[in-house]
Amino acid sequence: MRVGLLTGGGDCPGLNAVIRAVVRKGVQDYGYDFTGYRDGWRGPLQGSVSRLDIPAVRGILPRGGTILGSSRTNPFKEPDGVRRIRENLAKDEVDALIVIGGEDTLGVAARLHEEHGVRCVGVPKTIDNDLSATDYTFGFDTAVNIATEAIDRLHTTAESHMRVLVVEVMGRHAGWIALHSGLAGGANVILIPEQRFDLDEVCGWVTSRFRASYAPIVVVAEGAMPRDGDLVLKDAAAHDSFGHVRLSGVGEWLAKEIESRTGKEARTTVLGHVQRGGTPSAFDRWLATRFGLHAITAVRDGEYGRMVALRGPDVVRVPLREATARLKTVPDALYAEARTFFG
Amino acid sequence: MRVGLLTGGGDCPGLNAVIRAVVRKGVQDYGYDFTGYRDGWRGPLQGSVSRLDIPAVRGILPRGGTILGSSRTNPFKEPDGVRRIRENLAKDEVDALIVIGGEDTLGVAARLHEEHGVRCVGVPKTIDNDLSATDYTFGFDTAVNIATEAIDRLHTTAESHMRVLVVEVMGRHAGWIALHSGLAGGANVILIPEQRFDLDEVCGWVTSRFRASYAPIVVVAEGAMPRDGDLVLKDAAAHDSFGHVRLSGVGEWLAKEIESRTGKEARTTVLGHVQRGGTPSAFDRWLATRFGLHAITAVRDGEYGRMVALRGPDVVRVPLREATARLKTVPDALYAEARTFFG
Amino acid sequence: MRVGLLTGGGDCPGLNAVIRAVVRKGVQDYGYDFTGYRDGWRGPLQGSVSRLDIPAVRGILPRGGTILGSSRTNPFKEPDGVRRIRENLAKDEVDALIVIGGEDTLGVAARLHEEHGVRCVGVPKTIDNDLSATDYTFGFDTAVNIATEAIDRLHTTAESHMRVLVVEVMGRHAGWIALHSGLAGGANVILIPEQRFDLDEVCGWVTSRFRASYAPIVVVAEGAMPRDGDLVLKDAAAHDSFGHVRLSGVGEWLAKEIESRTGKEARTTVLGHVQRGGTPSAFDRWLATRFGLHAITAVRDGEYGRMVALRGPDVVRVPLREATARLKTVPDALYAEARTFFG
Amino acid sequence: MRVGLLTGGGDCPGLNAVIRAVVRKGVQDYGYDFTGYRDGWRGPLQGSVSRLDIPAVRGILPRGGTILGSSRTNPFKEPDGVRRIRENLAKDEVDALIVIGGEDTLGVAARLHEEHGVRCVGVPKTIDNDLSATDYTFGFDTAVNIATEAIDRLHTTAESHMRVLVVEVMGRHAGWIALHSGLAGGANVILIPEQRFDLDEVCGWVTSRFRASYAPIVVVAEGAMPRDGDLVLKDAAAHDSFGHVRLSGVGEWLAKEIESRTGKEARTTVLGHVQRGGTPSAFDRWLATRFGLHAITAVRDGEYGRMVALRGPDVVRVPLREATARLKTVPDALYAEARTFFG
Repeated sequence: MRVGLLTGGGDCPGLNAVIRAVVRKGVQDYGYDFTGYRDGWRGPLQGSVSRLDIPAVRGILPRGGTILGSSRTNPFKEPDGVRRIRENLAKDEVDALIVIGGEDTLGVAARLHEEHGVRCVGVPKTIDNDLSATDYTFGFDTAVNIATEAIDRLHTTAESHMRVLVVEVMGRHAGWIALHSGLAGGANVILIPEQRFDLDEVCGWVTSRFRASYAPIVVVAEGAMPRDGDLVLKDAAAHDSFGHVRLSGVGEWLAKEIESRTGKEARTTVLGHVQRGGTPSAFDRWLATRFGLHAITAVRDGEYGRMVALRGPDVVRVPLREATARLKTVPDALYAEARTFFG
Repeated sequence: MRVGLLTGGGDCPGLNAVIRAVVRKGVQDYGYDFTGYRDGWRGPLQGSVSRLDIPAVRGILPRGGTILGSSRTNPFKEPDGVRRIRENLAKDEVDALIVIGGEDTLGVAARLHEEHGVRCVGVPKTIDNDLSATDYTFGFDTAVNIATEAIDRLHTTAESHMRVLVVEVMGRHAGWIALHSGLAGGANVILIPEQRFDLDEVCGWVTSRFRASYAPIVVVAEGAMPRDGDLVLKDAAAHDSFGHVRLSGVGEWLAKEIESRTGKEARTTVLGHVQRGGTPSAFDRWLATRFGLHAITAVRDGEYGRMVALRGPDVVRVPLREATARLKTVPDALYAEARTFFG
Repeated sequence: MRVGLLTGGGDCPGLNAVIRAVVRKGVQDYGYDFTGYRDGWRGPLQGSVSRLDIPAVRGILPRGGTILGSSRTNPFKEPDGVRRIRENLAKDEVDALIVIGGEDTLGVAARLHEEHGVRCVGVPKTIDNDLSATDYTFGFDTAVNIATEAIDRLHTTAESHMRVLVVEVMGRHAGWIALHSGLAGGANVILIPEQRFDLDEVCGWVTSRFRASYAPIVVVAEGAMPRDGDLVLKDAAAHDSFGHVRLSGVGEWLAKEIESRTGKEARTTVLGHVQRGGTPSAFDRWLATRFGLHAITAVRDGEYGRMVALRGPDVVRVPLREATARLKTVPDALYAEARTFFG
Repeated sequence: MRVGLLTGGGDCPGLNAVIRAVVRKGVQDYGYDFTGYRDGWRGPLQGSVSRLDIPAVRGILPRGGTILGSSRTNPFKEPDGVRRIRENLAKDEVDALIVIGGEDTLGVAARLHEEHGVRCVGVPKTIDNDLSATDYTFGFDTAVNIATEAIDRLHTTAESHMRVLVVEVMGRHAGWIALHSGLAGGANVILIPEQRFDLDEVCGWVTSRFRASYAPIVVVAEGAMPRDGDLVLKDAAAHDSFGHVRLSGVGEWLAKEIESRTGKEARTTVLGHVQRGGTPSAFDRWLATRFGLHAITAVRDGEYGRMVALRGPDVVRVPLREATARLKTVPDALYAEARTFFG
């Protein structure tokens, strides 16, 4: 039995821990051989492979990134993509594929399995925690820890200088990182993509915080938008020389608006890719390792078209299709819980 | 409405986060007053109280320990204990109690509620993660992170000097911290109280690791015991001048045994209380905060005799009795997963 | 003997450690009383004071910020400023002042001492490490550690996705933080205010790094400028809606330029005030504590008009005037050392 | 020109950073070739070599340990040791040696250079900071940071439970780690090898701390000894089954004595090798990198028989003999500074 392995999509701490667990268990307990495909779906598409055995996975557990590389290549958008993949798998004598990735990467796996009989098992990966099929994914806890540490550090500066400090964190479509790190860090305002915010309300929280002689910390997800956002952001975009309004724009834009409306100085921190790199937290290593162990056991059991998922403390198997079923966003009730701490 | 609050049992990062959330939501959203009882059940027993309002909980979210102090006092073992508690609650005009603690502390709350009609809501706390009623408790993730960081640091020394490094972590009756940190840290042997270990097998893993030109890291829970433990440990105890065989003994004892049986140098790290102090991890702050919010809402709903619990990503209410129902230990199947990485 | 204490200028981890050491030694060993002045020179100017005794300094050693608050108020620019300060010191029966601050704050202390006989002892503070009178100041090591951890995390993302990652760190006039964190983090390009950079050269390093199959990390001090900077930045400023070109501009601008010139994707992290907040590193706590101990001993010795300074491993006393004598910038030879690692 | 490189003695974060800097500058700027000798002096003694070029040093900057391995082998104690080393250097066509190590390792280099004309340049390494020839060595700052973080975490437990917490840190002959981490962590008692301690005085500090309603933290260097130590420790040794009184004994012994004399519960943390493993702090990476750059430049300049050293912020060259001249211990005056915070 030879199993192919690939990692697709954006970076996420824990990818290497999955790879290591798959290979360790596959080789030692099941006697399998492995083929590592380079750079996501580009690997089986172009026949680009890496040696993948026990020595290759030594020491990678604590390392961020992925030893296999990654890409956003979609074989369904490449000429003859599916045929080339099937040919390369056949040529490499690969009997089954373990695919580690997010909605897009696993969506390809689901179609390849359903429509073309490619034997795939999925491992969900999204730093944003926005896959509905699993309680948590690895990488998310690491990102939340990093953002929380940054917020911790900002508190003292905020209070010594009575300034507004705005922290822009990841989250284009779901506000999980902002919500968790904002709650854990004791932020005074948390703005997420799921809930359009009202600038007057935000400035009200800022002002009431200053009245209590404390300085506010505002956590804003990169995808958060003001209520009258289309107008406002078109205007902001006009001032932005990159056209990346969401990437680096909202934090700075918000700081400026708060300054001009409240008369208080505001400063911005944009954590950027720091949130998705580096060594995984203990929880993420644990989760990624268990996902890897269970994925290779699903292969051993011949349970293709499935992906592993966390439900409570248990790792279970669910249909691969669930990975792309529905974006898991922050429910209203949960955001309402956080509002206790606003202002 | 006036609500009393107390924290009992051992230290656990996140206690202050619970207290803060209870008070913030109780005061702001429900208009309640609070009475802080000092040092666990000793507080209502002796009428020892602390002011507890919004200013009192400012800035405590990231701090370890508990601003209310703690103790292991059990009112059922004190003369006239229950009567004195009821009188003090009446005198303080306290209508309901939120009790934060482990099996013992919550067991008292359950009996006071069931047998004496004291209106109690519980919040589970155990750094060892050994309460069966909840998926996780706060403090555990912090402890696992700290132990994992220590193991990370030991890898380089182990390999540069080809030494066995033994890390003793907490866990008298349940091996969760050892299991999680050992897996996350890439330990080569993990020994837990649930599984008596065989010294020859341990030395076999150590030796096979050296043969592969790597040096082994052994994680041992303080309550782990060798298979022929009663005999062996009585002997070890005879050499130990404290009589605390479990507290500081197993790590040192194991290092010595490995040295003498394999001929390899072994060194020990005993993390001790470092694991249960200091700032909580982001996950623990999040969980503790949510527990606090849900506990005060349970009071508002008049749902006494219940405790909050984590089930998957949700906070639910379960009977207080469940807190003491059954020790949650590491299942055989889960330990078997970890064995893939031994040796 | 009553000693006044104030902290001025920007935030810097270690301020509280100085305050604690001054008060602990002053009270216990010398029997002094203390008056804390609020918000830098605004305190003695407006007679705004804080109680400052042993209980007031308990637990503040590891905390960032300053319990006394800070400001950039300059009494020489306030109507009747010097007279009001002298009157308030007399009214408060303050015999001597310990002034903790940077070039501006200590410059006021030097003039008050020289021109008006106010008995001042200085403690140097600058997160940028740009005071020539002392080898190091507290806060700098903390900032370098934070920036280095961020760079560490970016490496894996850079390499998994073959992207350019730009990190903007503090340093308007001196590049010490960029130089130290860039070297410690293994950056491939380090740009500092002292050395105008050539965009073609930067892009050359970026390209050569990619050719070796690694992705580059570029550390840029907020005050770094391209060789033809006046022209280029005026243009960038026109696109910047804040007018704060130096605050948040250079990192983003550089990423955009590298993208358009090399065709490689580039992403930016702007650490901002995260670098100057939060708990001090062990080195900074040690240094701040020793500065505090030596400052109060200088008062005991009647050595006014002096400030404490670090020379090698020793704390010495130098004239307060030296604090403002000359900006300590990165020497050419030191920057040349770092160039070994560029590209 | 071919340069040999070896690392000797105990583990120390920063060794790899030195190796990387030597090789990067040597290859790129001077065009040298390198031979890596394995396991300290055992390498040239037995002709055990490693490839050492730019690819070999990629990515090692942040890693603890040493890619070359280490040992305590002393060629002057091996039959024919010097002749074998000279023959192997000749056979390998090695023109000069860079030797990274402590007193013993550098003492060998000094003798080989002086007595046998072997061209050596030294890089000082001691985690204990006890070499008088240099202000600081790499590894020390990392160890102090780790110990300080542990002490930080213990504070909350100490205070929540009113227990004595004893932390045993490294330092057999010099108390630098205990002194720096104790001061930085706000310990209430610091015991070092240079100053025999009086148990009654220690218990006095412990008791007075409790009277102020705080719980004490005691930092003890592994080599600290009570005033009547020979008697007492012989007794303790009799209870110790390992005969390693200093390694793991003093902390436990002290906790027990404090318990029995003050009646207060005491707990121990033994950090052990956690202090000397893992990623170096930013300061240590900076220092190690600069030592490496200057060592290879000393080779280029033909300045043999010298070692690099830190003096203030500058790296200088001093005679290799100075490495072994005198143990740098904590001076009385410095320990007296720390006593301000005892009790």
